[in-house]
Amino acid sequence: MPTALIPVADGSEDIETVTLIDVLRRAEVEVTVASVTGKPGIVASRGTRLEADALIEDLVTEDFDLIVLPGGMPGAETLGSNDILIEKLQAQKTAGRLYGAICAAPAVALAANGLLDGIAATGHPAFTDNLPDQTRIEQRVVRDGQCITSRGPGTALEFSLALVEALCGKTKRDAVAAPMVV
Amino acid sequence: MPTALIPVADGSEDIETVTLIDVLRRAEVEVTVASVTGKPGIVASRGTRLEADALIEDLVTEDFDLIVLPGGMPGAETLGSNDILIEKLQAQKTAGRLYGAICAAPAVALAANGLLDGIAATGHPAFTDNLPDQTRIEQRVVRDGQCITSRGPGTALEFSLALVEALCGKTKRDAVAAPMVV
Repeated sequence: MPTALIPVADGSEDIETVTLIDVLRRAEVEVTVASVTGKPGIVASRGTRLEADALIEDLVTEDFDLIVLPGGMPGAETLGSNDILIEKLQAQKTAGRLYGAICAAPAVALAANGLLDGIAATGHPAFTDNLPDQTRIEQRVVRDGQCITSRGPGTALEFSLALVEALCGKTKRDAVAAPMVV
Repeated sequence: MPTALIPVADGSEDIETVTLIDVLRRAEVEVTVASVTGKPGIVASRGTRLEADALIEDLVTEDFDLIVLPGGMPGAETLGSNDILIEKLQAQKTAGRLYGAICAAPAVALAANGLLDGIAATGHPAFTDNLPDQTRIEQRVVRDGQCITSRGPGTALEFSLALVEALCGKTKRDAVAAPMVV
């Protein structure tokens, strides 16, 4: 069973966070939702109150097949300034394992920490100025090697399904999408 | 500011629940998420752990401009067997105020309690046998008078935007949709 880490903070975008959790679990990915705030309860950007499964500091030595960051502000900024998470993302990239981000997170959390250097990516229209490859920015989901990025709550479902395809293959993606009435 | 009640239970569908909360709040609707289980913490159908704002029993005398039910099983069934919620929905229908449901909830919670009698509606493909108007069932969102229904997690965003349009008008719908990258 593939594993995925979804880090969250106060101000993570509600739809993006929960769509990632839901769709990956429908694909039988073992998902761990980890708070980077030191407490399990977070308040998402539109006030949804979520309880994480774990704290990031308890996962320092654990590897995941995928690490994926929801957007939302200030959630994405908090993720991007968490040393444990950034170290895990750097190790993820070095090891050639899958990582991704959506909305504000590609710019604010990945690019800000050098994790998109030389990598084509997209992000929320309000946060694309400092992304490296301006030619692919208009696409709703961009995959470049082991990095997958996307734009906002309205693209969260296709982004999550792209992650399922990358982790579990196209047959699983289609099997997950059909009963969701995509 | 319009008001909306979103009742939830263990097994409410994660994406549907949170998309309704998020999109309605983006439209500045005052949203109350109310648990019908007697405790504020619920576990959604794919394991997302959510905290409700209130318990349904504390809202008996309160009216809302919209009552909207997420699907998911057994969440929709629990909603459909909650006497306080069903009484509120009957009062909502009688008063000509807006109500809606998605996925399993139109059949399992609304139709099962006579709340769709003579009303065109849709629902999840696995739960449409006992819906009254088979001619409109393939549509992703169906509005008939003050009742709006939809099909599943993949239609939750258009459903939520249709509710925003019904409550707040098309200009507000468009203003909410644009920054979500729909």
